[in-house]
Amino acid sequence: MPLVHISLRAGKPDAWRQAIFDGVYQALRDTFDVPEDDQFMTIHEHVPANFRYGARCFGIERSDDLVYIQLTVNDTRTTDQKKALYRRLAGLLAENPGLRPQDVFINLVEVSTENWSTGNGLATFV
Amino acid sequence: MPLVHISLRAGKPDAWRQAIFDGVYQALRDTFDVPEDDQFMTIHEHVPANFRYGARCFGIERSDDLVYIQLTVNDTRTTDQKKALYRRLAGLLAENPGLRPQDVFINLVEVSTENWSTGNGLATFV
Amino acid sequence: MPLVHISLRAGKPDAWRQAIFDGVYQALRDTFDVPEDDQFMTIHEHVPANFRYGARCFGIERSDDLVYIQLTVNDTRTTDQKKALYRRLAGLLAENPGLRPQDVFINLVEVSTENWSTGNGLATFV
Repeated sequence: MPLVHISLRAGKPDAWRQAIFDGVYQALRDTFDVPEDDQFMTIHEHVPANFRYGARCFGIERSDDLVYIQLTVNDTRTTDQKKALYRRLAGLLAENPGLRPQDVFINLVEVSTENWSTGNGLATFV
Repeated sequence: MPLVHISLRAGKPDAWRQAIFDGVYQALRDTFDVPEDDQFMTIHEHVPANFRYGARCFGIERSDDLVYIQLTVNDTRTTDQKKALYRRLAGLLAENPGLRPQDVFINLVEVSTENWSTGNGLATFV
Repeated sequence: MPLVHISLRAGKPDAWRQAIFDGVYQALRDTFDVPEDDQFMTIHEHVPANFRYGARCFGIERSDDLVYIQLTVNDTRTTDQKKALYRRLAGLLAENPGLRPQDVFINLVEVSTENWSTGNGLATFV
């Protein structure tokens, strides 16, 4: 049930964006114990004027390839799992589509397990 | 003050999308005790390549009509109210625009009441 | 590290939207103690049918210029800081681009400091 919203500058080919989806899903499988096919994700493409980033903030040199990945997840993961997710996700995206680790910006929003209805009008986890 | 962001695949007529707005608002009125005209909502339309979903995850058969409805709300509702919201929202959207309950994906993000300024530069609830 | 998603109706010139980015960043600098160049923000433009608002809800008279500003931030700020942010942000946007304070809708989503990787696959704050 993570719900993932991804924002990046418009102009990348479809394969680039599919690789981002694939990497997010695989990283969640590997570190957050999500079930098979638990992939609920969107990509928002922005013209340059609608996408702003601090190019050197926090000592990281970012480029126009920067991707914001905001994942809303259950509040059941440990700090170690979160660190594993960050590392794994940056690693996978470096392999494919070839995104620099400096350009992977991740944020987790945590909610309680009763905050999801993944279909049929029913609470999925309670 | 719920702030609601809705994502779906592009291509549905205006009336379809207005019915989704109407259903979300009515469900909030009926189950979350929001005041009249408390409707602050956006729809994000995505090309197929930018919208991914697990078609069978959690035992639900979803279609390309799937809608992600993410509501940021005050952290004042009970579990029963949340369940009522899910049920009511799926029911209303089944009536109009005729969305299958399997294609209604709902997520709540809860915040404290001091986290809103609905205008005029003032905290609205504290 | 605030991650800021802004939604408004499409049709405003670039300068208008840049002024909103600038105002959000300056308000965060002035009231939330963010470091220099800590600006990670997107704008989502919506056709009228995809942007709905309560025009008079909570006693505020809103117009089609309404802007939703949703900021995901660390859960380290006081109520006074939040109120200062709302006031400062509405004030700055009134100066430039000339947005009416009634049309500034702000929501804060708070997360723990371990919920960020601003790059390199590492947790930025833990």
